[in-house]
Amino acid sequence: MSLFVQKFGGTSVGTTERIKHVASKIATFRDQGHDIVVVVSAMSGETNRLIGLAKDIQVDPEPRELDVLVSTGEQVTIALLCMALKSLGYDARSYTGSQVRILTDNSHTKARIQEIDVNNMRTDISAGRVVVVAGFQGVDENGNITTLGRGGSDTTGVALAAALKADECQIYTDVDGVYTTDPRVVSKAKKLDRITFEEMLEMASLGSKVLQIRAVEFAGKYNVPLRVLSSFDGGEGTLITLDEDNSTMEQPVVSGIAFNRDEAKVSVLGVPDAPGIASKILSAIGDANIEIDVIVQNVAADQTNDVTFTVNRSDVAKAKSILASISNEIEAREIRTDDKITKVSIVGVGMRSHAGVASKMFKTLAQENINIQMITTSEIKISVIIDERYLELAVRSLHTAFGLDKTEETN
Amino acid sequence: MSLFVQKFGGTSVGTTERIKHVASKIATFRDQGHDIVVVVSAMSGETNRLIGLAKDIQVDPEPRELDVLVSTGEQVTIALLCMALKSLGYDARSYTGSQVRILTDNSHTKARIQEIDVNNMRTDISAGRVVVVAGFQGVDENGNITTLGRGGSDTTGVALAAALKADECQIYTDVDGVYTTDPRVVSKAKKLDRITFEEMLEMASLGSKVLQIRAVEFAGKYNVPLRVLSSFDGGEGTLITLDEDNSTMEQPVVSGIAFNRDEAKVSVLGVPDAPGIASKILSAIGDANIEIDVIVQNVAADQTNDVTFTVNRSDVAKAKSILASISNEIEAREIRTDDKITKVSIVGVGMRSHAGVASKMFKTLAQENINIQMITTSEIKISVIIDERYLELAVRSLHTAFGLDKTEETN
Repeated sequence: MSLFVQKFGGTSVGTTERIKHVASKIATFRDQGHDIVVVVSAMSGETNRLIGLAKDIQVDPEPRELDVLVSTGEQVTIALLCMALKSLGYDARSYTGSQVRILTDNSHTKARIQEIDVNNMRTDISAGRVVVVAGFQGVDENGNITTLGRGGSDTTGVALAAALKADECQIYTDVDGVYTTDPRVVSKAKKLDRITFEEMLEMASLGSKVLQIRAVEFAGKYNVPLRVLSSFDGGEGTLITLDEDNSTMEQPVVSGIAFNRDEAKVSVLGVPDAPGIASKILSAIGDANIEIDVIVQNVAADQTNDVTFTVNRSDVAKAKSILASISNEIEAREIRTDDKITKVSIVGVGMRSHAGVASKMFKTLAQENINIQMITTSEIKISVIIDERYLELAVRSLHTAFGLDKTEETN
Repeated sequence: MSLFVQKFGGTSVGTTERIKHVASKIATFRDQGHDIVVVVSAMSGETNRLIGLAKDIQVDPEPRELDVLVSTGEQVTIALLCMALKSLGYDARSYTGSQVRILTDNSHTKARIQEIDVNNMRTDISAGRVVVVAGFQGVDENGNITTLGRGGSDTTGVALAAALKADECQIYTDVDGVYTTDPRVVSKAKKLDRITFEEMLEMASLGSKVLQIRAVEFAGKYNVPLRVLSSFDGGEGTLITLDEDNSTMEQPVVSGIAFNRDEAKVSVLGVPDAPGIASKILSAIGDANIEIDVIVQNVAADQTNDVTFTVNRSDVAKAKSILASISNEIEAREIRTDDKITKVSIVGVGMRSHAGVASKMFKTLAQENINIQMITTSEIKISVIIDERYLELAVRSLHTAFGLDKTEETN
């Protein structure tokens, strides 16, 4: 008999029929003798509907009131799911974030969890009740309703699992697990049975949007075993855990291939090779709240510097105009932008103990005549920036080269 | 400078446009220097939408969870109204019932208010903020969300006005005040400038559905001046107050004519003229949770009794079958029902000091050849049961006879 925290997202509870389906899924676990704490999102479309009402009234809605508004979405779902459980004969009790007492700071619309009171939940679990908690929301020390930001229900699930020392936090979603890469791009993409927190973080931040990064970080920090699985199909999904005993020997060197189509490249050419120039460029961009991803700097033959970095495509125009406004100060010869690029990354904890991974990656791309524009590496990841026309080709050939293609047997 | 509690119902906040309109109305009062606490209902249609979702899942939804569900309706409105006020440049803060701490008992879906904590509201008022409170909801001592039952937002408004010792509780609605009778029945019906709590109670319970009875009782008990007025038009509305100094001398004898089309008559004929028979009949009906309104008993020439009473039309069939099941025990000769009846009442505190009101009523009806089937009286009201065909005729002729018709001048 285990304690599971099960999180169901907006699609899984999108209609009353689906809520009944979720209830019957939970009932199966109860019948097996497990204790269940459920975390739910708002019914799909509801959060957007509420934000639409707010924007009808105020272009930039008051954060405190926006939290009061959108937190009703999850409150509706917890009540309906408890009704569905009761109608199947299972005792259940709903909790808003405030009723659990999920204490957060007071940063409305992006609050961070500080403390969770588990007393009421423990009492209900002991009494044989399913506990149903509204995801994505909390309460500050003055009783104001807060929200954790979009997608924060995953974080609620992991935080509750950590606080309750649950055996597993199960994230039910509309995919059946984490794949070696996006199956829409590579038909031979394989579902992973296991992946480490670190790998999952790299995969998620690079664009495999199965789980919220913040939830994965949280799970890693408190060592909460996290499982991603489908609300609709059966199957074991993908288990995300610590890389215990560093047992990477038995693992593939590369676990997955991630990519991100949303990046654009900004090049500042011919700046003086003097201390402080790169810093001036990057702080001007940072001060405008533009996130920078990859940065490369190299000294050209004429002893001037080229500073190149990538930003989100939606920020390119803004970045260019900021640089133009300081071009005298940084003495740049030219500012170029290119939004027809993409980032492709190979990820795997196995890289730590294997040499030659980078050269294999570069060789594979070279064989396909794909030019690498920028390179950046971390301990468990190598990313390259390439022309976006070659995205599919690059991902497919790397997927094959690193032995990730599914075979007929595993299909 | 006064403190007003202003309550806006579902129609008044039915769209984001209307919410903006309400905000501008409140702004006018703020500009005049008044302190304002606002109570709002759910946007019209929202409560029914939520109940519809619940009934999709559970025919008879769990009361605790139903309260969690439907209380989101008002929570949406408080957030949107605060945004609208802020966008006009007025500081405002929203409160759910739980955040105010409107403490209730734990009777879910029909909770009663026990205590209201005014501290947070007082702080906001002092800081120049408009306080916006979700109507219809509270919290029990264990932190469970409760609701006061349908229409309970009026009660919230009055209760807050009492707790805050407000100068007036203003109920904004889609009519511009309380009328001498339903203007759809009598075109010469007149808006009343003032009416007493007692009269309003009789008018409301008799079918003039402007205000919740419970709110009027509450206002009377705590002597909260209550004003009914239109959200859409201007005007002073109708003020409902105590009958101070019993100053009925200057008031009309009859203030209004109420009627109720929902009643039906049940007659139990020929029961023995013995103690306990009426009690047996009426307790059988009461035990089935059927409300009895008018009761008349009279001894026939053959020394048997006829017991006649009225119930809501929807309860007639049930009442009849209950009586049939005990007809041996009560030795009834016959049980008759008639749902083609209606109740017409004249109401006025002035009756206390005026004789001849009843005879004037009966004479007026006799002149129109309207037969009176049952009569019941209280200190400030006389009700008659008549054939429903004569409803309009009866109300119109009584309205004229008691001098309630509006003249060209007051039009």
